[in-house]
This record gives sequence, structure tokens and C-alpha cells, in this order.
Amino acid sequence: MPHSVTISIDAMGGDHGPEVTVAGADLAYRESPDLRFQFFGEEPVMRPWLDRHPALSSVSAAIHCDVTVQMHDKPSQALRRGRWRSSMWRAIEAVKKEEAAVAVSAGNTGALMAMARFCLRPLADMDRPAIAGLWPTLAGESIVLDLGATVGADARQLVDFALMGGAMARALFQKPRPKVGLLNIGVEEVKGLEEVREAGRLLREIDNPHIDYVGFIEGNDVGKGLVDVVVTEGFSGNIALKMAEGTARQISVYLREEMSRNWRARLGYLLARPAFTRLRRKIDPNRINGGVFLGLNGIVIKSHGGADALGFAAAIRNAAAMVRNGLLDKIRQDIGALHQAGRTLPIAATAAGAL
Amino acid sequence: MPHSVTISIDAMGGDHGPEVTVAGADLAYRESPDLRFQFFGEEPVMRPWLDRHPALSSVSAAIHCDVTVQMHDKPSQALRRGRWRSSMWRAIEAVKKEEAAVAVSAGNTGALMAMARFCLRPLADMDRPAIAGLWPTLAGESIVLDLGATVGADARQLVDFALMGGAMARALFQKPRPKVGLLNIGVEEVKGLEEVREAGRLLREIDNPHIDYVGFIEGNDVGKGLVDVVVTEGFSGNIALKMAEGTARQISVYLREEMSRNWRARLGYLLARPAFTRLRRKIDPNRINGGVFLGLNGIVIKSHGGADALGFAAAIRNAAAMVRNGLLDKIRQDIGALHQAGRTLPIAATAAGAL
Repeated sequence: MPHSVTISIDAMGGDHGPEVTVAGADLAYRESPDLRFQFFGEEPVMRPWLDRHPALSSVSAAIHCDVTVQMHDKPSQALRRGRWRSSMWRAIEAVKKEEAAVAVSAGNTGALMAMARFCLRPLADMDRPAIAGLWPTLAGESIVLDLGATVGADARQLVDFALMGGAMARALFQKPRPKVGLLNIGVEEVKGLEEVREAGRLLREIDNPHIDYVGFIEGNDVGKGLVDVVVTEGFSGNIALKMAEGTARQISVYLREEMSRNWRARLGYLLARPAFTRLRRKIDPNRINGGVFLGLNGIVIKSHGGADALGFAAAIRNAAAMVRNGLLDKIRQDIGALHQAGRTLPIAATAAGAL
Repeated sequence: MPHSVTISIDAMGGDHGPEVTVAGADLAYRESPDLRFQFFGEEPVMRPWLDRHPALSSVSAAIHCDVTVQMHDKPSQALRRGRWRSSMWRAIEAVKKEEAAVAVSAGNTGALMAMARFCLRPLADMDRPAIAGLWPTLAGESIVLDLGATVGADARQLVDFALMGGAMARALFQKPRPKVGLLNIGVEEVKGLEEVREAGRLLREIDNPHIDYVGFIEGNDVGKGLVDVVVTEGFSGNIALKMAEGTARQISVYLREEMSRNWRARLGYLLARPAFTRLRRKIDPNRINGGVFLGLNGIVIKSHGGADALGFAAAIRNAAAMVRNGLLDKIRQDIGALHQAGRTLPIAATAAGAL
């Protein structure tokens, strides 16, 4: 039987607060009764929801915090108001104190990243963290990083991201040597950004045994699931994510319009309704859930702010899987080995590449 | 009655060659009998297709070229083999010689851009060209540029793109003052790339009367059609385009799977088939057609390589509209005015921004 895992939860985060965070935890707990929880939030707000789930409450601690970070707070504001005392901060701090193995919040991304960096600090040898997302593909799921933490990453940071994404794929997908690709553009004339080409050279030279670096991949290949891990810097990664979300929404609107245009289409829709429901679930952006902050001394999971209990439960499930599979140790090991080697090999390669 | 417009066509370009390019021209000609054509290509290959369309042939010239640029040729290869003599080169050259008002090719993008730059040369005061695409949105169509010509554009180049995109929107959408937005990311902590912020400052300062600069927009807003023109540098623009294409394809596969899963869904599909056909047409990546090369002394249109005759006809229709609405003069005027002013105002602003 797997050993128990304690998860700290920012109960107030997200558009719906404890209504979703507590109910989501309850769903996750029913699947995995070895989970334990620490809920951080305003006691009077959390209490009624905890009382609805007595079994969950019996394996949980509820810790009162009188400050709640708002969804629209700027990171600097959130840090000023919420450091030491907010539910978001305390959930992260529980990981630092090793009272919890992983923190989950549906609160605002900028504030969560700022607090996580401040509280947990970057891993040794790491400049910048990354946000990794789980991306639904025709082949299952891929990991895409960075989704917006590090704008303008250089070649060395892209290599760090490749190793961290690879470690996450090993932890979540149980693949011993996941396929890793660098996102690049296909117009032949311009072979993409110099940083990306340089990162590709470094990944080939390093030849890390835990990842199978397959080269560049293009935007239209991400959805095919050609690789397990797609690596890009934060600006283009964030744009890629939002373009996919926006396109899915746009097609949903078209579909709704077309299916209500006349009686034949409406009847067809009624007959095929279960199929449409499954489709909607597949392309719902809320289900691209569980953005994972990597590169810090502790794992923090960002759930989508608009997630429902099912979505929040999925984030918790992923959080538990990453803990059980020793994600943080895997990352420390790979990044450590890289930067050990980097004192000789890749730094020389970088310098040569820059000439 | 509008005056006649002569369009030069690289008849050999694309996956299907004259079968599609000639048939597409014929469709466009039926709509607009004032169009005139110059077809460049291998005479024995073009001839049978031209013979099928006698009315079109009577207003067209067919010019034999014994070299055809292949879809997989590298730009350098294409230039070496195809300069002066290929159908692609000669179609562009017809614009330079003012024998045609605009060139259309479904040939390979890298080769076409390399030849267009070499033959037509950048506009005065322009460093780098851009590829502008027409993007289907819930509100109609928007223009997105750059889709991959200029990787890593700086703030001044982004401002050039904004003005060129604005001129194209005026020419194609008949809007006197189109809305222009800069693509940026929404994670508050990192307010995006410095170049993008700087371009935003410049656009506010310049306050060009022909565009309504509305600020930053995020990837998931592109499909809503919030702005007429979306400006970004070529790396993220290419990734945005390909992510949208890939997502549309992915959803089509899901839809097909779901609609064939059981008899109810299949029956629903049969009833709603016309609706599905319209949907498929709306989200077909081949219909994001007519990538336009801007920033050169002449307009060149890249049609999708896999386009059918309908798609190629759409590219020709856009080409004619841009000529009739004086796109090139509009661009020359706006870029000229900018760089006139730039000798005082925006260069100072750039320098200040860099400090």
C-alpha cells in the first residue's frame, strides 16, 4: 500500500473558494484514502464545507488565516498583504516546513508564483522557475513548459526546463525515458531563435540518460502528442496555451451556432448529445489543469481559477502522483548532474555557440 | 466599374500545381471579369489546364519557365536554382517590372520570401518584412502579423508591423481606423517582453491617425476578434498560428471519433451533416489563406500549399482587393510619416526606454 501523502490546500483560492477546494479534496480522498489534508483559509468560510464532508474532515487539519489573496491582486500587492499570513502563503509554507509534501492552490498565478519563489527559493543551480502544464493530445497527455514564469529564457534555462519536464513525465506518465522536443518554427529560411538552436545542441551533447531528446517540434505537432515534453520559453509558451484555449472556445461557439441553426441540426444534436458532452469535456480549457511550478525547493500546483470540484480533484491527484514518484528528487538529481558536468562540457559549448 | 487588375501567378506552386492554380484563377475571374492574369510555369504542364478554361485563357498570358521551385527546396537552394528563371521568380519579377500589380504563389514559403526580398527589396526605412495572415474570428476576420518572417523583432519593427497591418486592414476591411493590439502575456508578475512594452509606448506616442491602438491583447482574445490587427514578432506569431491550426485539427479528430462511437451519435451526425460541413469549412486550416508579404516594394501573396481551387481563388480575391485599395501606397505613406517623425520623437523614446 502506498504511504500516506499530506497535501496543503489554499482553501480560499480560485473563483469559488472552499465550495470547490473542499469538495475537490473530498473527491480525491475517496479515490485515495491514504491522502491527508491541511486546509488554510478563513475558518468561518471553510467550516460549513468541511462539515459537509465528515470523513474528509477526520483526516484533515483546518488552519485559520485571516488574509485571503484576491484573484485580481498584483503579485507585489499580494506579497505585501499576504506574506506570512494569507491562506496562500501558509499553504506554501507548510511545504517548506515539511508539514505537507505538496501545495495546491487555485488562486491567482502571479501571486502564487511570487510567494512560492519567495518562500521556497529556487533550487541550487537554478536561475528561474517554470510553470509546466498538462496538455491533452490525441495520444493522451503531454507536458508543456514554460507557460509564463520565465519570459525570454536562454539556452541553459531551456535545458533546465527540458530536464525538469522530463522528470515530471517520468513521475506522472511512468515512462523511463520520455521523449522531449523543443518548440520551434517551421519556416525554413529562419531556423528559429538562436537560443532554441543552442539549447538543441546542448541537449545532444549532454545526452542525459533520463530523456530522449528528439529535436525541434512545431506548434501544430503539439496536439498530436508526438513528444511527452514540449519545451519553450515563457512568452511563446503562454501564447501557445492561450491560443489553444481560445481556438477551442471559438470552435465550441461555432458548433453551438451550427447545431441550433435549424430543426434537423437540433434533432441531430439531441441524438448525439452524449457525444457532444464527451467532446465538451475533452476540449474544456478548465481541464488543462494542474500547472506545476518547477525549479523551487518544493512542488506547488496551480489549479485553474475557474476549475470545478472535478478539476480541482484532478490537480490533487497529480500532486499526489508527483510526490509518490519522487519528482523533486528526480529534478534535483538531473539538474545537479547537469551543472556538475556543466563546469566542464556545456559551458564550453555555450561559449563556442555564442561566437 | 473598377479598373482591371493584372495578377501574376506562379502556376507551378503548391501541392497540386496548375490543377489548382488555374482552376482557382478561373473561379476568381468569374466573380471579377476585370481581372487579368499572367501564368508562369512549365508550358506543357499548364497548357491542358488553361485549355479547360477558354474564357480565362482569353484574358491571360502563359509564360513558359523551365525551372520549378520544389516544396522542399531550401531558400538558398531555390535562389541558386530558380533565380531569374523559375516560375516563382518570374511571377514576382512581373510585379517589379510593373507588368502585374500583385503576385500569388502557393509555393514554399521560405523560397518565396527569399526571392521576394531579393527581387523586390525592402521598402525605404524598413529593415525587415512581415508575413500577415487573415485569421477567422467570432467577429469575422482579423489580420495577424508577423507569422514567421522576422524572428525576434524589436520595438521599432513591431511598430512598423502595426502600421502595415493597419494599412492592410484599411484596404481589406474598409475600416477607416482599424483597432490594433500587441500580443502579450497575461501573467501579471511578468508583464511580457520589454520589446512589446516599448512598442506599446511608441504606438501611444506616435498616435498615428490611421490606427486605433488599443493596447495589449492575450492569446485567448485573438479568436474573439477584439481587434482588427494583432501584432507580434515572428517566432511567437508562427507558434500562435500553428497552435491554432493544431488545436482545430485535434478537435476535428475528437469530433469524428465521438460521432462514430455508437448508432445514436451516427444518426445525429447524419441529421446534422450540413451543420458539420459548415463547421468543417469554418475551422479548416486551409482556409486561413492568403499570407501577405508586407514591407517590400510590391505585394506578394502566399497561398496555403495544400489549398484547393476555392482557397486559391480566395487568395486571388484578397490580392485584387489589396491592389484596388492601394495597400502599397498606404503602407509607404504611414511608414514614411513614421520615419520622418522618428528622426525626432520615437528614436528619442527608444533610447530613453533602453536606459
